[in-house]
Amino acid sequence: MPRSPLAPATFPTIPPIAGVRLSVARAGYKPWDRADLTLARMTPGTTVAGVLTQSKCPSPEVDWCRGALPHGAARVLVVNAGNSNAFTGGRGAAAVARVVAAARAASGCGDHEVYVASTGVIGVPLPADKAEAGLAAAFAAADCDWEAAASAIGTTDTFAKGAVQHAVVDGVRVTLAGIVKGSGMIAPDMATMLGFVFTDAAIAAPLLQAMLRSASDATFNCITVDSDTSTSDTVLAFATGAAGNAPLAAVDDAGADAFAAALTALCRDLSTQVVRDGEGASKFITVDVSGAENDAAARRIALSVANSPLVKTAVAGGDANWGRVVMAVGKAGEAADRDRLSIRFGATLVAAHGMVVADYDEAPVAAHLAGSDIAIAVDLGLGEGRARVWTCDLTHGYISINADYRS
Amino acid sequence: MPRSPLAPATFPTIPPIAGVRLSVARAGYKPWDRADLTLARMTPGTTVAGVLTQSKCPSPEVDWCRGALPHGAARVLVVNAGNSNAFTGGRGAAAVARVVAAARAASGCGDHEVYVASTGVIGVPLPADKAEAGLAAAFAAADCDWEAAASAIGTTDTFAKGAVQHAVVDGVRVTLAGIVKGSGMIAPDMATMLGFVFTDAAIAAPLLQAMLRSASDATFNCITVDSDTSTSDTVLAFATGAAGNAPLAAVDDAGADAFAAALTALCRDLSTQVVRDGEGASKFITVDVSGAENDAAARRIALSVANSPLVKTAVAGGDANWGRVVMAVGKAGEAADRDRLSIRFGATLVAAHGMVVADYDEAPVAAHLAGSDIAIAVDLGLGEGRARVWTCDLTHGYISINADYRS
Repeated sequence: MPRSPLAPATFPTIPPIAGVRLSVARAGYKPWDRADLTLARMTPGTTVAGVLTQSKCPSPEVDWCRGALPHGAARVLVVNAGNSNAFTGGRGAAAVARVVAAARAASGCGDHEVYVASTGVIGVPLPADKAEAGLAAAFAAADCDWEAAASAIGTTDTFAKGAVQHAVVDGVRVTLAGIVKGSGMIAPDMATMLGFVFTDAAIAAPLLQAMLRSASDATFNCITVDSDTSTSDTVLAFATGAAGNAPLAAVDDAGADAFAAALTALCRDLSTQVVRDGEGASKFITVDVSGAENDAAARRIALSVANSPLVKTAVAGGDANWGRVVMAVGKAGEAADRDRLSIRFGATLVAAHGMVVADYDEAPVAAHLAGSDIAIAVDLGLGEGRARVWTCDLTHGYISINADYRS
Repeated sequence: MPRSPLAPATFPTIPPIAGVRLSVARAGYKPWDRADLTLARMTPGTTVAGVLTQSKCPSPEVDWCRGALPHGAARVLVVNAGNSNAFTGGRGAAAVARVVAAARAASGCGDHEVYVASTGVIGVPLPADKAEAGLAAAFAAADCDWEAAASAIGTTDTFAKGAVQHAVVDGVRVTLAGIVKGSGMIAPDMATMLGFVFTDAAIAAPLLQAMLRSASDATFNCITVDSDTSTSDTVLAFATGAAGNAPLAAVDDAGADAFAAALTALCRDLSTQVVRDGEGASKFITVDVSGAENDAAARRIALSVANSPLVKTAVAGGDANWGRVVMAVGKAGEAADRDRLSIRFGATLVAAHGMVVADYDEAPVAAHLAGSDIAIAVDLGLGEGRARVWTCDLTHGYISINADYRS
């Protein structure tokens, strides 16, 4: 696939994170000539947090991570690209167990310190022989940089996605680095979202978990490509503590706010890159909802707009179709008063008080919609609830990618 | 637009309904050379029931009908095609009031015996002068048949949709006739669903309302084209009583079951015709869910499958992508056990016990998916809950229709 027209110009410059070693290898999950197994080794004492798919039919990797997370410690992360191992019954779980055992043996850690994530074709058990050989090769390989790791975890992604942030905690400058893959919210082809965040900050696992949950709710859980949800979506955060700050343990510790803000900014950067690689996307859309009864209502309304095929096709066509936005607000099921509703495209108010603004200037609206970054803002006029979500347009490219693929 | 490849060969033969007169006229809501105003006049004593959009931003026509329905009596129905009158503030409501006043004056009935439905462009107040002139012309026009009325209420529809059923009530053979328009669940373009049912049976309004609600829940509310919901969706049922049966008033009256069954069959016929005219549709899809915790859970799972862009594009591509069905089941949020799930395409079991059926015969599956009527069946293996919904595939045609349209 050609690089998305919405992709950033270059991969960012991300420094190494003290206490983290990255390497990649070719396990050969697909007949391709590229690394498809990624290994991250973390120093002893590394804490971990995770947010996993809400699917009721999760992959065995998700089950494994869910079981390990309460222990709060991590030494090894293994990411397989090309085979999601989802919906493979007991054989899939057995393959995960073999990967965990191999990682434990090579690194001398405990089972519950090994994390595994896989993405790719559904319904085919992960070939454990290939996984073990690939993992051994990755343990033996030279360290690699973030871009190599970001590339190796990708599947249908058209560009490698990474981000970096800094914060000052306890007088110490800490770094947060992240990589992510995904080009839909979507599963069975190869578009699961996997995101991995690494920091040299010292932070207790329960606080890291709370911060990652909060950051994800405002970022990874506010993006949508096609409303579909993978069986394997996984976001994990690892904190090595190598920066030497006094460990953060409570939300009111000095520096906790700064770290949380940096984590959220990092997750926002990563998650919007996923939208920018949305299957067939030609436009990046930010939907802001304000004036809703509360934040949860605002979020549901924003997602209703962002998931509406009619809104998404209108944006693809460069059409300021505020009527479709009204429709999507109306179907969200949240409190709305037709006659208080106002809608903006870009900076231009196009509908207010339940009617089109009769004399609104169409020129700036047309110019805005001709661009690649589109802003749709809805004000309900009812309360203080606000939300922002991100999506992309729905194009012939999406149909071509998903109707022409064969399982 | 060319006639949908999924359309029935011909419009059915539907006899007149005693107590109902139909006529059409050209109000000229759009610059087209066709009738776009439909008038139905019902005999005194006609009862009425209705099911209206759940949108929180409904059209003033929907508001009007909602206010009239508790009175339970109807004499006139006016349907405007080409202008939905939705999101037009006070001017839209004023236009409805003028239509109602004109209908009342021409027919000598009460305000609350006049029903109005409009479909078409959003955001432009219904031109009341055109509506009044068109209505006068329709009152003066010769009676027309069902096909002419079904054609006149259409907008983006590629074929006229009608159906007929019979039942024996109190020893009397009664007839139910219906017309419907719609080619998406959708609003602001011109694809609102409007459905109108007429019967010569005598039936009290509260019972008719209960039966229409029940029938709609199993039919009109079980179809989806693109998950979007119109601001104007309206289904109304009128019972003239001209057949002379002893009026049905309670669910256990003799003949009530037969009438309810006929009404549901009629609504099923009409609603599936809407799916067969789905924008861009090339395949008609029936999704059956069984073994869910309860019927409501089954329905949510079925709609999750039917609304999944990935499932719909897979069917468009003729791909037996059961993995996408697993994904859609998983994201529905209802109880599911990956390892009890089974999936059929047509008559072939392709996945069971959380795994693909290793040796399933692909030939009949491929043959089934090459056809135009596709059956997907999911069994959860948990309980007795069942549901059936209908949808169509998602194709380049949908994108072309909706991205190329300008508001």
